[in-house]
Amino acid sequence: MDDARTTCYTSTMEIHALASLSKNKSLVPYSYNKEITSEDVLIKVKYRTLSNSDVLFIDDYWGNTAFPVVPSEDVIGEVIKKGNAVKNLHVGDFVGIGYEVYSCGRCEYCKKGLEQFCQKQRNLRIHEQGGLSDYMIVHHDFAFPIPQELQRPEATPLFCAGLTVYSAIVNNAISKRMKVGVIGIGRLGHLALKFLKSMGCETVAFTGDLTKQNDLKTKGFEVIDLKEELEKFNNSFDCILYTSTIDLNWDDYLKLLKPTGKLCIVGFPQNQISFSAGLLNDYSRRQIVGNFIGSRDDMKMMIAYAAKNNILADVDTFSFNESNKVLGMVKDGGIPYIAVIKS
Amino acid sequence: MDDARTTCYTSTMEIHALASLSKNKSLVPYSYNKEITSEDVLIKVKYRTLSNSDVLFIDDYWGNTAFPVVPSEDVIGEVIKKGNAVKNLHVGDFVGIGYEVYSCGRCEYCKKGLEQFCQKQRNLRIHEQGGLSDYMIVHHDFAFPIPQELQRPEATPLFCAGLTVYSAIVNNAISKRMKVGVIGIGRLGHLALKFLKSMGCETVAFTGDLTKQNDLKTKGFEVIDLKEELEKFNNSFDCILYTSTIDLNWDDYLKLLKPTGKLCIVGFPQNQISFSAGLLNDYSRRQIVGNFIGSRDDMKMMIAYAAKNNILADVDTFSFNESNKVLGMVKDGGIPYIAVIKS
Repeated sequence: MDDARTTCYTSTMEIHALASLSKNKSLVPYSYNKEITSEDVLIKVKYRTLSNSDVLFIDDYWGNTAFPVVPSEDVIGEVIKKGNAVKNLHVGDFVGIGYEVYSCGRCEYCKKGLEQFCQKQRNLRIHEQGGLSDYMIVHHDFAFPIPQELQRPEATPLFCAGLTVYSAIVNNAISKRMKVGVIGIGRLGHLALKFLKSMGCETVAFTGDLTKQNDLKTKGFEVIDLKEELEKFNNSFDCILYTSTIDLNWDDYLKLLKPTGKLCIVGFPQNQISFSAGLLNDYSRRQIVGNFIGSRDDMKMMIAYAAKNNILADVDTFSFNESNKVLGMVKDGGIPYIAVIKS
Repeated sequence: MDDARTTCYTSTMEIHALASLSKNKSLVPYSYNKEITSEDVLIKVKYRTLSNSDVLFIDDYWGNTAFPVVPSEDVIGEVIKKGNAVKNLHVGDFVGIGYEVYSCGRCEYCKKGLEQFCQKQRNLRIHEQGGLSDYMIVHHDFAFPIPQELQRPEATPLFCAGLTVYSAIVNNAISKRMKVGVIGIGRLGHLALKFLKSMGCETVAFTGDLTKQNDLKTKGFEVIDLKEELEKFNNSFDCILYTSTIDLNWDDYLKLLKPTGKLCIVGFPQNQISFSAGLLNDYSRRQIVGNFIGSRDDMKMMIAYAAKNNILADVDTFSFNESNKVLGMVKDGGIPYIAVIKS
């Protein structure tokens, strides 16, 4: 046993799910067996998301999908059973589960509390099945207890999408009164707007979607259309979070940043990002930074913050047997923010 | 008078220099008059650099050269006279002067001690004449006293090139034992190597120049040829400083960074930088960051650090009347690191 988190096999469980059996295939009923070790918890799934991320995994967009693949990377469920070594969780606890469900516990990143960079981490849909199932079995370190305020469908997207944007915000030292833009107001972006607004930032939404523009304006957000003449906003943003998938004229957006501003990439543009080096270092030290989900500490802080500040996603809810229909709606743009499938 | 640093004109001085009268023209004798205000010091120039930066300004590469242009952006000289309001400098002091020679003193950046981002700053060869002259007149805030150890030709390149790399190092929190690469070992790069090595970093030089490779190896630096198979060094660097002008396959270099590593751009590649977004945010939060010269505080720290740790440039020295020859040598690659013109 090489890993710090040793395992001791105790029992096996048959899990009933919906899966895509191979690339681009619709979901069909699928069962698999999984062992529950002494360090695991067995979770009865209550709510889980279906999103564009699942569509891309089913399309094997990144080439690393493990088929048959059970989708969903944000899950809320109830602890039904726990291994002998599990001390921090109890039967009846509600927990949230995100994209990362295991880390080695002994590499330099795990030791620093940066489990999101562990090279031995296990992720939903690559190494473990996602949450579109009746039960899940996960290591207790990656099942995060959630308070009553978050035991509801609208909290489900917090555990991957919410964590990703919250972590980007706190790890880039974004704080009160800063002017922060969010490009792309979907699953990630609409949660970013909510966190930023509640933190007291001057929050600006960049979107080309007219329906969303009107919705956002009624909610009090400043909105900039992607086709708008951006030059008048040059040198005014402390940070811009890119949460989209579309390609941009990146120079135009770098120019929007103050001399010490940051462009944080949490989305995945289809093509390479190209920019003029001078925009980073002429009278400035601008930065282009990445972010990948968040650490376990980030997750705990995010949960506490969201519960206290009533940060919840705008969801459309569906039943389990509507899952294929939902994936079709996601592809066709029929889900404005995010879909949650109830058990 | 809008600026915090008010001026009171007291006298005028005729300065004798060498200047390029228009784009791409050789240097010819050129005189100009400049007023000495109560906040200025008159400096007798002892040493100044000529570098590729001057070649580019004479070529009007960035389109902002003010012709006739007197080159040189790093200067050492002696205070000969000072305005009534100057308290921190005295006649006989040796001072270093860099690229920035004025800032407004009242904008948000000046107030934060980040004068290098002041939008009203004045720079050599754009707003003020450079140092290839008998005298210079500069605001006392931008003439930095230097100790005896630095009163020599080899210290001259510290005041623009040295400041730029020192500021990049300290503002990116590079510290002892970190593994740091430097791409391009010329004017900026060779100073970066010296600072990094003296700070206890594991310092690696990336260069395609075989003569420099041998020189660097004898000095104890690890060297990687730009044509070498880089993959074996993936995920191993805390920071890479790009100090070159050549275009790279940027993805190959981003992959060299650890998950939290930084690529710092202080050079100016000829074309746009293109990279795959996933290299910033797949199991990582890598960063691409810029840097622009340094603040006044950075300059003072750099001077103290260089004096204490014997950081000096590898220079070739020439006389004033060899200046045109030197610019030709710079263009032809005949100056390995940097040229200094003595008075």
